[in-house]
Amino acid sequence: MAATRLDLARIRAARQVIDPIFLDTPLYECDALGRELGCTVSVKLETANPVRSFKARGTELVASLLADQGHTAVVCASAGNLGQALGWSGRRRGLDVTVVASRGAPAAKLDRIRALGAELELVDGDFERARERAANLARQRGVRLVEDSLDIETCEGAATIGLELAGSLDAVLIALGGGAMATGVGYVLKTLSPQVEVICVQPLGAPAMTRSWHERRVVTTDATDTIADGVAGRYPIPAVLDDLLAVADDAVLVDEASIVAGMRLLLERAGLVVEPSAALGVAAILEDRDRFAGRHVATIVCGGNVDLSAYHRWVRP
Amino acid sequence: MAATRLDLARIRAARQVIDPIFLDTPLYECDALGRELGCTVSVKLETANPVRSFKARGTELVASLLADQGHTAVVCASAGNLGQALGWSGRRRGLDVTVVASRGAPAAKLDRIRALGAELELVDGDFERARERAANLARQRGVRLVEDSLDIETCEGAATIGLELAGSLDAVLIALGGGAMATGVGYVLKTLSPQVEVICVQPLGAPAMTRSWHERRVVTTDATDTIADGVAGRYPIPAVLDDLLAVADDAVLVDEASIVAGMRLLLERAGLVVEPSAALGVAAILEDRDRFAGRHVATIVCGGNVDLSAYHRWVRP
Repeated sequence: MAATRLDLARIRAARQVIDPIFLDTPLYECDALGRELGCTVSVKLETANPVRSFKARGTELVASLLADQGHTAVVCASAGNLGQALGWSGRRRGLDVTVVASRGAPAAKLDRIRALGAELELVDGDFERARERAANLARQRGVRLVEDSLDIETCEGAATIGLELAGSLDAVLIALGGGAMATGVGYVLKTLSPQVEVICVQPLGAPAMTRSWHERRVVTTDATDTIADGVAGRYPIPAVLDDLLAVADDAVLVDEASIVAGMRLLLERAGLVVEPSAALGVAAILEDRDRFAGRHVATIVCGGNVDLSAYHRWVRP
Repeated sequence: MAATRLDLARIRAARQVIDPIFLDTPLYECDALGRELGCTVSVKLETANPVRSFKARGTELVASLLADQGHTAVVCASAGNLGQALGWSGRRRGLDVTVVASRGAPAAKLDRIRALGAELELVDGDFERARERAANLARQRGVRLVEDSLDIETCEGAATIGLELAGSLDAVLIALGGGAMATGVGYVLKTLSPQVEVICVQPLGAPAMTRSWHERRVVTTDATDTIADGVAGRYPIPAVLDDLLAVADDAVLVDEASIVAGMRLLLERAGLVVEPSAALGVAAILEDRDRFAGRHVATIVCGGNVDLSAYHRWVRP
């Protein structure tokens, strides 16, 4: 494995900083789902916590570091889950948290960000517009900007999931957005269990990082078109791409119908309400059953924050 | 506390026998749910495992004991969740598992019992008819009968949940059916944290054990009428009632509309798909908000096996 920004000792140490409520999440074989998909499927469930996503593993590290350094405020851009997680982690450490998000983000996520006591600023346009605005805001206010996937703590936090992926796995399916989770978990797997295939999954409608991985250079896109709001970026970060090139065995794209089918299967066969990004792994199996037939595959169910009206429309039989 | 059949050392030792996949389940404060209910609500989530209910904590003990004793077969009656759990625990230990259930049990539960390799026999009538048939079958075959709540291992398994209910809780809400979970968890709480109020919750439509607790003698009913299929018994077991009298601070009844409202809130505010029995705790808060106002209440989300067609009908906005 080529060098990355990640380090196993730091990732192991991160477990001491992260509130235990976000660690050691359920990992279990879901027989009913596996029968449907023709392989053994283990679910790593990151939704049974106060922010219903894996993001707090990273924000716990970020907020702890900032508080230790004497900071009193922090700004981030968020598609919705990072903002909730930073809101939660910041509040406990007395940090004023400002979140910039797209007006088009799911209302459920925006409502929860506000409820957690964060200041929420909405911008027109997509997540990349929110990123620009958050950077400007942080500069104007002289406040620390948290950049998901670029700030190493966000990757290290996500990477702690990798430490918990024990068992005889053949492949792990990881939702790919900015790349914090894919590089973090991928790094741990390639370090401790190199035989496990690390497969990143992104929507066809938001393919920038996947295309970048295949072309081994940053490829941006003009727009995104996917229900998987949590992974809909357009501008891959060069340093994160470098790490992804070192740790991922593959990066695949799935279509919207498969994401919806994945959400429906997770509800019907596993009893789990998940947001579209969390169904990417099941979608990847659905699109390439032969590849996974008979193998033991883990999929990280990374978030469950969803607008229920849209959700019901998607999963309706 | 009066003497019970339970013993803390045995319950602690049980943790060594139960597959870790069923232990140390998520326990977290659900802020959105608490805001809606006017109190601090912590969820103890027993659905994120291969059988989607707490019952395997007990069947792990039962099946392990039977295998150690050289048994090769076992019979139980089940409303649906015990059968799945015994199927799972028995299969791993080479036991032939036969489950007797009511033809009216949720298809989702019956399908999963079969999928786990158990022999399933269906009877006309309710759960009490299944209990009678299972006892006869065990006698005919000369095979060990597992009796939920009466067999101490089923109570001890459930009691391990109590060991995990840490934190500054004021009250714990426990679904009450046969009484294994209520007596087991209640015993641990009254032993280790006697200040925590132990409140059992049963449907008005299946009130036998609650009435028995209030009258301090076994009260049976002629019929049950509730969607909470997991707790719909009519014949309380005397020894279990004695234990419940020793450990419960209260036993309350809730109506069907509150159970449905509880299921809907758990979906909308916590993103959890639960079966009716698992919504009894939230239903109890809904029916007596003043009692819980401002307090820290834990509710055990004990099962998530539900027929989705019925579920959608219940939670439809």
